[in-house]
Amino acid sequence: MRASKGFWVRRRMAFAKASVDVGVALLGYGTVGASVNRLLVESADEIERATGHRLRVVHALVRDAGKERPFVAADGVLTTDFAAIRDDPSVDVVAEVMGGLDPAGGYVRELLGAGKSVVTANKQLVAREGADLFAIASAAGVQLRFEASVCAAIPVVKVLRESLVVSNVHRLLGIVNGTTNFILSRMERGGSYADALAEAQALGYAEADPSDDVNGADAAAKMAILATVAFGSRVTLDDVDTRGITEIEPSHVSAAAQLGMVVRLVGIASLVDGRVDVRVQPALVERSHPLAAVDGAFNAVMLQGDAIREITLGGPGAGGIETASAVVADLVSVVGTAGTGFLQNDACWRELDFLPEGEWRSPFYAHLDVADRPGVLAHAASCLAAHEVSVAQLVQRLDDGRAAIELVLHAAPLGAVRAALAEIAALPEVLASPFVVPVISERPL
Amino acid sequence: MRASKGFWVRRRMAFAKASVDVGVALLGYGTVGASVNRLLVESADEIERATGHRLRVVHALVRDAGKERPFVAADGVLTTDFAAIRDDPSVDVVAEVMGGLDPAGGYVRELLGAGKSVVTANKQLVAREGADLFAIASAAGVQLRFEASVCAAIPVVKVLRESLVVSNVHRLLGIVNGTTNFILSRMERGGSYADALAEAQALGYAEADPSDDVNGADAAAKMAILATVAFGSRVTLDDVDTRGITEIEPSHVSAAAQLGMVVRLVGIASLVDGRVDVRVQPALVERSHPLAAVDGAFNAVMLQGDAIREITLGGPGAGGIETASAVVADLVSVVGTAGTGFLQNDACWRELDFLPEGEWRSPFYAHLDVADRPGVLAHAASCLAAHEVSVAQLVQRLDDGRAAIELVLHAAPLGAVRAALAEIAALPEVLASPFVVPVISERPL
Repeated sequence: MRASKGFWVRRRMAFAKASVDVGVALLGYGTVGASVNRLLVESADEIERATGHRLRVVHALVRDAGKERPFVAADGVLTTDFAAIRDDPSVDVVAEVMGGLDPAGGYVRELLGAGKSVVTANKQLVAREGADLFAIASAAGVQLRFEASVCAAIPVVKVLRESLVVSNVHRLLGIVNGTTNFILSRMERGGSYADALAEAQALGYAEADPSDDVNGADAAAKMAILATVAFGSRVTLDDVDTRGITEIEPSHVSAAAQLGMVVRLVGIASLVDGRVDVRVQPALVERSHPLAAVDGAFNAVMLQGDAIREITLGGPGAGGIETASAVVADLVSVVGTAGTGFLQNDACWRELDFLPEGEWRSPFYAHLDVADRPGVLAHAASCLAAHEVSVAQLVQRLDDGRAAIELVLHAAPLGAVRAALAEIAALPEVLASPFVVPVISERPL
Repeated sequence: MRASKGFWVRRRMAFAKASVDVGVALLGYGTVGASVNRLLVESADEIERATGHRLRVVHALVRDAGKERPFVAADGVLTTDFAAIRDDPSVDVVAEVMGGLDPAGGYVRELLGAGKSVVTANKQLVAREGADLFAIASAAGVQLRFEASVCAAIPVVKVLRESLVVSNVHRLLGIVNGTTNFILSRMERGGSYADALAEAQALGYAEADPSDDVNGADAAAKMAILATVAFGSRVTLDDVDTRGITEIEPSHVSAAAQLGMVVRLVGIASLVDGRVDVRVQPALVERSHPLAAVDGAFNAVMLQGDAIREITLGGPGAGGIETASAVVADLVSVVGTAGTGFLQNDACWRELDFLPEGEWRSPFYAHLDVADRPGVLAHAASCLAAHEVSVAQLVQRLDDGRAAIELVLHAAPLGAVRAALAEIAALPEVLASPFVVPVISERPL
């Protein structure tokens, strides 16, 4: 069917500029939910200017309607009855800001099925069940937006889906966890991992129980979401090869500094010959690389694609008001595009295989503690050569009769690097398992 | 009027998922125009997935339909007749990629008036006539998008307009000219301005006539556009206080290095108590600031607002395919939001006053060449104190019987700093006019 001028004119006329109240419901009314309500009230004019509509919170689902709230909701808005929200025809779009998988996941499914668009800030939910939720939304002809689920107000999901639609993004690099970035940045100024963690906790950058941050799980959830969107194929939390920062010692940080690099927890998602690889691990990042400039608790994501070379987005990756601002931006985008078909597609539209882990290629850094005896270096060099792993830089240092060998390896398959290092480590002169991490460099290494 | 469920359902049904050809016309078919056509052909499936529509180039306006083209257009597409495009009802949206003010400006006006949405990559046109064009588009109920007019594929316009709609962005800092950034980055490794410019020309980062880059005019056009969008008030090229980099000497670069800073051409747009200030000038940027990490010909824009603290976007700010990718993203967004009212507003909806130049506050760096005689320093210090300008750092250096005084000044109004420096420069011991530029620091100085 050919578009006629009449087609476009009819579209315009059907939604002429009458200002219409759009009913919004919130699932949850804690810090983020109350901030969403406040931003909707305070920015009502800006939103009407952008969309032609006034958005108004008509229900907010809470467990206890009597509790005191940071921004007071209008009379009758707080409710404990989910079904009343789902079945209220005046609710056009719902923001899920309660968190957790259950009951949030079930609620989102019911709302999408009932024809209501949903905006969610729920990283765990999208990382684990995103692909199913996208399919439900698409089948129902409504939208599921989730900008706030990754890096708060940094608009990486919108940029990936709307600005880079023809860019064939094939690689994402991300510093997507502020706690670990703060800890690793802090260790550059001296002190142990434990000291840096304690300081992060004192400053409120780390929780009392920092497990999900320092073991990489939080970063892995964000990378799963970003990889799913970038590559259009389901990547769940369990598909992300994840390694945290608890093993990082001051010696790693100072060895990196001597090579002109910094240690960072980096998420890497790659599309290689139609196969997907997603990993989160400590990496050595060259100082001149944009990701090395991400300081303290900030986040940044670099998107590499055909038509754009690379686009980097950075900013605070957490915070209640920052998250609320992303939720509101999504609400505005839902209202501004409802009915056009724009992004009412299944964001996860194909099924790609995963790359076997050993085939993932990168430059690497390796550290070996060895006894200072003749022949160790020669043996190490020949093991690497036998696996066709080529050495870019080698430094041997002496310390108290022990030697440390540090290697920067040219890009090679992870499997070959591991096999070579296993052979080297089998020598009795090698005193501990090798420490090996990828290197992130600006130019191919 | 209250939105009912029926309202939204009707919206969805009106645009059910029939795949519809959307007719696109191009004004211009050079490097960018041909790349737009190629991306539309090669990414037709991705675009249909996002919008439900297939976009097809039906006309491309050229001066000579017989000339050879980088990507061949289909038979009958090339035309020399603008009226045929304007009057063709099968043309739904037009991409202006011809550049220049005339006839491009007149064409865009006629197209908007004829009810066709327009996407433009034309920086000069938007910087000079944007406010009028936005008003015409809004009155006609069509869209004017212009992502490609600023920093190519870096999606700063979309992020400002759609993601940061409730963020009250009050300050933008930008490195928005790749040529000057390359030259200044290059000078850090030694050599004169002339050497660095010659290298930029040899590598294709600078034109044979680099005037518009090195005198700041190109950056000023981009800052005018960004300030207009961010603050919603008309800022034209002539409103931007502009100073280029031709006066920068190796001594400035090395003095900056000794202070832990780099020299960069920085655009700064500020909203101060409801008044607007936009300027482009060399500045000293602290090495730890994200803008200092922008290397070579890359661009970056930092957006500071209430709810987001700051978001930084970086990437290549120029290039044919990068620009084409931004044009296509805009075409996709026009098609994906047509008829909803979303961003069919007047982007320039209020009239704000400009800040009197002397009231603009910043930390500053100043360099004074003085004769090495007693009392100069004391006189300088008392002039600054008399104007309530406070000194953060002062270094005096001796060189061949001449002294250089370098000052880093705490944030102060530009007028007070200029007045104090004028009094200092009136001393016979001061051998040349002071060199003074703003300082960009991470923390308030």
